[in-house]
Amino acid sequence: MTDPTSTTTHPDDDAARRLDRAHVFHSWSAQGGLDPLVLAGGSGVHVWDHAGRRYLDFSSQLVNTNVGHQHPRVVAAIQEQAGRLATVAPSTAALVRGEAAERVLAHAPAGFSKVFFTNGGADANENAIRMARLHTGRDKVVSHYRSYHGNTGAAVVATGDWRRVPNEYARGHVHVFGPYAYRSEFWSTSPEQEAERALHHLERVVQSEGPASVAAILLETIPGTAGVLVPPPGYLRGVREIADRYGILLILDEVMAGFGRTGHWLALDAHDVVPDLVTFAKGVNSGYVPAGGVMMSETVARTFDVRVFPGGLTYSGHPLAMAAIVATLDAMADEGVVENAAAVGRDVLGPGLAALAARNPLVGDVRGLGVFWAVELVRDRATREPVDAATMGRIKAGALARGLLPFTADNRVHVVPPCVVTPAEAATGLEILGDVLDAVAADVL
Amino acid sequence: MTDPTSTTTHPDDDAARRLDRAHVFHSWSAQGGLDPLVLAGGSGVHVWDHAGRRYLDFSSQLVNTNVGHQHPRVVAAIQEQAGRLATVAPSTAALVRGEAAERVLAHAPAGFSKVFFTNGGADANENAIRMARLHTGRDKVVSHYRSYHGNTGAAVVATGDWRRVPNEYARGHVHVFGPYAYRSEFWSTSPEQEAERALHHLERVVQSEGPASVAAILLETIPGTAGVLVPPPGYLRGVREIADRYGILLILDEVMAGFGRTGHWLALDAHDVVPDLVTFAKGVNSGYVPAGGVMMSETVARTFDVRVFPGGLTYSGHPLAMAAIVATLDAMADEGVVENAAAVGRDVLGPGLAALAARNPLVGDVRGLGVFWAVELVRDRATREPVDAATMGRIKAGALARGLLPFTADNRVHVVPPCVVTPAEAATGLEILGDVLDAVAADVL
Repeated sequence: MTDPTSTTTHPDDDAARRLDRAHVFHSWSAQGGLDPLVLAGGSGVHVWDHAGRRYLDFSSQLVNTNVGHQHPRVVAAIQEQAGRLATVAPSTAALVRGEAAERVLAHAPAGFSKVFFTNGGADANENAIRMARLHTGRDKVVSHYRSYHGNTGAAVVATGDWRRVPNEYARGHVHVFGPYAYRSEFWSTSPEQEAERALHHLERVVQSEGPASVAAILLETIPGTAGVLVPPPGYLRGVREIADRYGILLILDEVMAGFGRTGHWLALDAHDVVPDLVTFAKGVNSGYVPAGGVMMSETVARTFDVRVFPGGLTYSGHPLAMAAIVATLDAMADEGVVENAAAVGRDVLGPGLAALAARNPLVGDVRGLGVFWAVELVRDRATREPVDAATMGRIKAGALARGLLPFTADNRVHVVPPCVVTPAEAATGLEILGDVLDAVAADVL
Repeated sequence: MTDPTSTTTHPDDDAARRLDRAHVFHSWSAQGGLDPLVLAGGSGVHVWDHAGRRYLDFSSQLVNTNVGHQHPRVVAAIQEQAGRLATVAPSTAALVRGEAAERVLAHAPAGFSKVFFTNGGADANENAIRMARLHTGRDKVVSHYRSYHGNTGAAVVATGDWRRVPNEYARGHVHVFGPYAYRSEFWSTSPEQEAERALHHLERVVQSEGPASVAAILLETIPGTAGVLVPPPGYLRGVREIADRYGILLILDEVMAGFGRTGHWLALDAHDVVPDLVTFAKGVNSGYVPAGGVMMSETVARTFDVRVFPGGLTYSGHPLAMAAIVATLDAMADEGVVENAAAVGRDVLGPGLAALAARNPLVGDVRGLGVFWAVELVRDRATREPVDAATMGRIKAGALARGLLPFTADNRVHVVPPCVVTPAEAATGLEILGDVLDAVAADVL
C-alpha cells in the first residue's frame, strides 16, 4: 500500500478520472470543476485507489457501509445468489426475499408485519407517503426543514433542505422546525425546553394547516445529513402523541440512522416511540446492492389486503439485494457489530470528540452516539458563525492528504465510520482529524 | 427437471410461499388473494422453482432479461466486482462507472456525451424531467395517456395510465392521446392518417397549454406496458418538429424498448428522430442489478457545467450495476443478441403471430417487432370489445400449466421472451400459446 501523498501513478486511476470527466454526470454538483477521488478497492474500514493509495474511511461512503467494506460473508452471499438467480419479477415469490423480509422485521417495532422493498431510501419514502395518504384519505405531509428524505418527486419535497426548493413541483408538503439545541429556533435554554417548544410549534402548525388534511408526520429519527440532530428526550414521544391526537400517521425515516449506525438496531429503539411506518435503505445491506424499503404496521398493511396498492417497481425485492440483506443482518448479529458501534461511540468517539472540542476553538458543538457524530465548526464560539466553504475545503484536503476520508456537510465534519471500526482505528482517525483541525485553527483564527 | 403440472413438493417452495404471504408486500396489488409463482433458478430463456418445475420465460420477467437468465459472462462480472469493491459513493470516480457510461453512450444518438445513472427507470425519468425543467426554465411535461414512466412522485404523474390517478400529488403534467391505429382516438383509417392526426392533436394541446410553459414532451419510443404501440411512420419525427417549433425538449423513454428488445440497440434507431434526453433501465443490464439512467445531449449536459444539478442518489453509478452493464452490453455485441432479436421477430414471431391471428377469432390485433409483440384479444372482432379478466386468467393459467410463463396486461398477451431466444424456442412458445388460445376460444366464443 502506498502513502496517500505519493505521486505514484497507475493507468487505471488515469482512465477512471478521464472516463469520469468525459461521460459521468454527478449528483448535486456543477459538473465543470469536479476532481473526484478515484477508488478501486476496500476492506473493512479502508478503501484505496489503483495505485494503492489507502484511506481510512470515516465517511462510510454515503454513511452506508455499516458492515464495512467487502465483508466476506456479504460478498459471498451476493456471488452465490448471482450464480443462482440474479433477477426475478417482484410478482413472484422468491425464498430469499421472504427471508430478507423476515430478517428486517426481526428489528421492527412490535406489531409490524410486512415489508415493501424498493431500490433505495427515496422510493421508500415515496411509498410510505403514498401508504399514509391512502390509509388516512388525507393529503398533507409534515416534515422538518432540516431533513433529507430523497430526491424523487414526492420524496424531494418532503425533504426540508435546499434540495427541495428547485424541485417543488408537488404540493401538499408542509415543513416545520425541529429541535436543534445548538441553534434553537425557539429561544430555548435547555434540551427539555427545546423539546417542549418544538412540540408546541409542530402542534400549532398541524392545527393551522387543518389536522384533518394531514396524512403523515415524516421525520428522520435522527436527522442525518442535516447534522446528526439527536432529538432531545421526550420529543419523539411527543410527536407520537400529537399524531395520535389528530389521527395522523407517524413515519420514521431510518435510512441513515438505522441498522447499527447509532449503536442500536434502529435509532428509534433508544426512544419511547412506535411509529406506523419505518423507511430504511443504506445500512440494511451496507449498500452492497441498491435496496430500501418500508416496514409496515399491521394496521397499515391491512388497509391494502382488499384495496389495490397503486405503487410498484421492477426491482422490488431484487434477489441480489435480498441476499445482501440476509447476509449483512446475520453477520451484524453474529459478530456483535451493533454492540461494537455502541462501545466505540461510548468509549472512543464520544470522549475523543469532547476532548477535541475542549481544546480546539473551531469546534462549536459535538453531538451524536454510536458511530454517528457531527462536529460543528464555527469562526467564533460566541456568535456561532459557521466556518466558510474554503475552510471546509482545506479540512477535507488536509484529511485526505493524511489518509483519512472524511464526510463533510456545510460547516460540519460528520464522524461516521463503518460500525465495524475498532477502538484503535477510531482513535487513529480521530487523531488525524484533530491534527488537521488544530492546524487549520492555528491558521484561520 | 419436473413437468409443470407435477405435484412434486419441495420444502423451499413451501417456505418461499409462506414467507412471501406472511411478510412481503407486493406492487400494484391487493395483498389478500395473491398466490405468487415461486421461482428459484434460471438459465437462458428458462426459469424453474425449487422442485424443478420448469417454464419457458415469454415474459423476460418484467420485460428486462434481454440477455437471458444467468448469462455466465454477466454473472461472472458481478461476482468479480463484488469481490473487488461492491459499493462506492457516487462522488468518487470509479473505473467501472466510466466504462459503463462509455458503453451506454456508444449506443446513444450522435452528440450525446454524458450519462446520469440511477437505480431504475422511474428515477431516470424523474431526473430527465428535472433536467428538462431546469434547462428550459419551464414547468409542464406533456406525455401520453397510454404510457408508463415509473411510480415516484414526478414519474408517476408523467405516467398516463390508471396508476397515475391515485398518485396525482404533483402538478404540471398534461396528457395527450398518442397514435394507436387499432383503437384510434382520431377516427383515422390508415397509419399515415393516425400519425398526422395524433400530431395535430399534440400540437393543439401544446398551443392550448401555452407553449412557453412546456418544458418537455416525454414519450416511450414504443409504449410498452400500454400495448407495444409501435408508432406509425412519421409520428416521432413530427413530435420532434413540434418540440423544436416551441423550444421544448424531447425525452424518449427507452426503459422497456431499449437495448435489444426491438431488434435495434435503441428503439429510436428505427425512427428518424434525435431526442434531447434518453432514459433507460431494464435491458441495459437485464436487471441483474438495479440500474437505470439518463443519456444527455451535449447541449443539455452543458447547462450543468456551471450550474448545480439539484438531484442525486446514494447508489448512482453503483459498481455492481455498472459491472453488469459493461458485461451485458459486451456480451450482446459479441454474441449478436440484437441481430438475433431482429431475426426471431422477422422469421418466427411475426409470421407465427400473423398465422395465429388468421386462425383464432380471439385475436383482434397483433403488432410489434423484434422480441416485443402484443396480441390483443377481443370477444368480437367487429366491435373489438376486449376479453374480460376471467378469460385472461384462464389464458395465464393454461400457459403456466403447459410450462409457458406469459406476460399479460389488460386484454393482451405480450410476447416478450429474452433477446437470446432461439428460433426453435420461440416456435415452441408460440405453439403453446396458440394451443392455449385455441382452447379458450373454443370455450368462450
